[in-house]
Amino acid sequence: MPELRKDSVTGRWVIISTDRSKRPGDFIRERVVAKGGGFCPFCPGNESKTPPEILAYRPNDKAVHNGEGWNLRVVANKFPALGIEGDLGRQADGMFDKMNGIGAHEVVIETPNHMETLATMPLKRIEDVLWAFRDRILDLKQDRRFKYIMVFKNHGEAAGASLEHPHSQLIALPIVPRRVREEVDNCWHYYDEKERCIFCDIIRQERDTGERVIGENEHFISIAPYASRFPFEMWLLPKVHGSSYENNQSSIYSSLARMLKDTLMRLDVVLDRPAYNFMIHTSPVGEEINDHYHWHIEVIPKLTKVAGFEWGTGFYINPTPPEEAARFLREARLSEFVLTEKK
Amino acid sequence: MPELRKDSVTGRWVIISTDRSKRPGDFIRERVVAKGGGFCPFCPGNESKTPPEILAYRPNDKAVHNGEGWNLRVVANKFPALGIEGDLGRQADGMFDKMNGIGAHEVVIETPNHMETLATMPLKRIEDVLWAFRDRILDLKQDRRFKYIMVFKNHGEAAGASLEHPHSQLIALPIVPRRVREEVDNCWHYYDEKERCIFCDIIRQERDTGERVIGENEHFISIAPYASRFPFEMWLLPKVHGSSYENNQSSIYSSLARMLKDTLMRLDVVLDRPAYNFMIHTSPVGEEINDHYHWHIEVIPKLTKVAGFEWGTGFYINPTPPEEAARFLREARLSEFVLTEKK
Repeated sequence: MPELRKDSVTGRWVIISTDRSKRPGDFIRERVVAKGGGFCPFCPGNESKTPPEILAYRPNDKAVHNGEGWNLRVVANKFPALGIEGDLGRQADGMFDKMNGIGAHEVVIETPNHMETLATMPLKRIEDVLWAFRDRILDLKQDRRFKYIMVFKNHGEAAGASLEHPHSQLIALPIVPRRVREEVDNCWHYYDEKERCIFCDIIRQERDTGERVIGENEHFISIAPYASRFPFEMWLLPKVHGSSYENNQSSIYSSLARMLKDTLMRLDVVLDRPAYNFMIHTSPVGEEINDHYHWHIEVIPKLTKVAGFEWGTGFYINPTPPEEAARFLREARLSEFVLTEKK
Repeated sequence: MPELRKDSVTGRWVIISTDRSKRPGDFIRERVVAKGGGFCPFCPGNESKTPPEILAYRPNDKAVHNGEGWNLRVVANKFPALGIEGDLGRQADGMFDKMNGIGAHEVVIETPNHMETLATMPLKRIEDVLWAFRDRILDLKQDRRFKYIMVFKNHGEAAGASLEHPHSQLIALPIVPRRVREEVDNCWHYYDEKERCIFCDIIRQERDTGERVIGENEHFISIAPYASRFPFEMWLLPKVHGSSYENNQSSIYSSLARMLKDTLMRLDVVLDRPAYNFMIHTSPVGEEINDHYHWHIEVIPKLTKVAGFEWGTGFYINPTPPEEAARFLREARLSEFVLTEKK
């Protein structure tokens, strides 16, 4: 008998197939392995092919702005979804509502090495990526037009990446997206009723039962969420309550780098390098410090197709129970991954 | 400058790229053309390979139940997302909520001809498909456990179809999906404020401006919605207010058959037979007759990938303004389609 489970944070229901549950080998997909070879605007030496640097980390102080010698660069997206110049121009269009597409759309080039991934990069360099997210969020928040800053990564063509070179993206939006607003509001209602953060409660329960826990380090826990929409969906949560990604002590980012690398390595081992998306869920601009919202990262491997039923209902059908996904991920032999990588 | 547009029905915001808008030829995709050849459980002669018939239309009265000679068959899905037997067993799971996955999952085998599509089938047979949807909805509604019945079609592998033979699906759910509830409630709020149906207002405005109208016949209008999530998204709306798909006079279904065929032919001509999903949006069980909700069909061609940004925010980035999509679809030369099909 399949199960209907409710995500306690969003109120979304999910159908979990328990009878004929799909194991990692049952999903047909392409391995995401960089081919390299062609021209890449994100590779060192091609700095002039991207818009100018907004931020760069260079180990050598003598290195030149917009030149080589960087470990990480942030540039404007050459084909931005939103434009940075102008005002919002809110207006009616007959009975409809519109505004100018004002916002920022930036690309974090995570490494000069075209062939690396966040699973294979050295920890210190993953930490750099996390610091770049923080630095850019703090800077973008100074623009009073922006109400939400979304950090996300599309890894692999199937997950929407159009360039192979490791990169992630930031989009600053002039309105708080409805899905974010709903999640934050639901957390507020829970807090209002119980004087507890719902994510803190989830962490407590998941640590008690253990069956959906994937990994844990001093500051973070990774779980397969109870009402996972997608097979092998994972959430990375700070164990101590914090409401925004960008307001944390530095020890948090080094701990997150380890947790992120660990999680993505497990994903690569269990599912043989699948395409995936991850998104940072953090509080909206101006609501950074609160007791009800708990920032976190959601990782969704691209294994199934979203089809008519999902579009029509907002319901998801997940063929792999999160308890099984967590077991596979928890028991992944990371030593194998390291060996394969060294070949 | 891109535009942010709000969907007045759902409140969802969409980013419409206006600068570098994508034309039909800019989308990379595979044509959906049936190959045939292999074993197909939905082809005539293989009736025993599916679960038994729930409904069948046979022109010849002497034809045998579960035998050949049918124009259309409805069978239970062999791999159902939900189980039909049992009670809901609502229960808590620690702080979480779950229930048994009770529901119905049926497949409408639209034609005995493996190589046909809803765009190429004769009108009378498309009408049969629409009647089958109606007949099954009316029957499933008698089961008091079901609160919503979703009719949808996945056409082509990219849109989630696992079998090539033309078919659509029905899923009966024990709860009203949140996305449906929100849409119906928003319509109720609009009605409560204005004493008018929001969709009736949309139809009036779209007919006035004409720029997003694709086609029209005596009972239906097809439009590219103002805040289309996807390039070439289309809505088919009855011009006279009606709140549920299954409660209509027979002239409506023949008119809808013509509108659906016309719409899908235009899609095939303009985008060279893309994969698509369609979903019938109708009132929940027990709320069939009302003044605020206006049933309709949404058609979404599968041209872009939903990636991290969309998953994180619920915002969509649509690279083709609906005014341009509507123009391409309106001006499609259907005569070319008919000629190609005859070859």
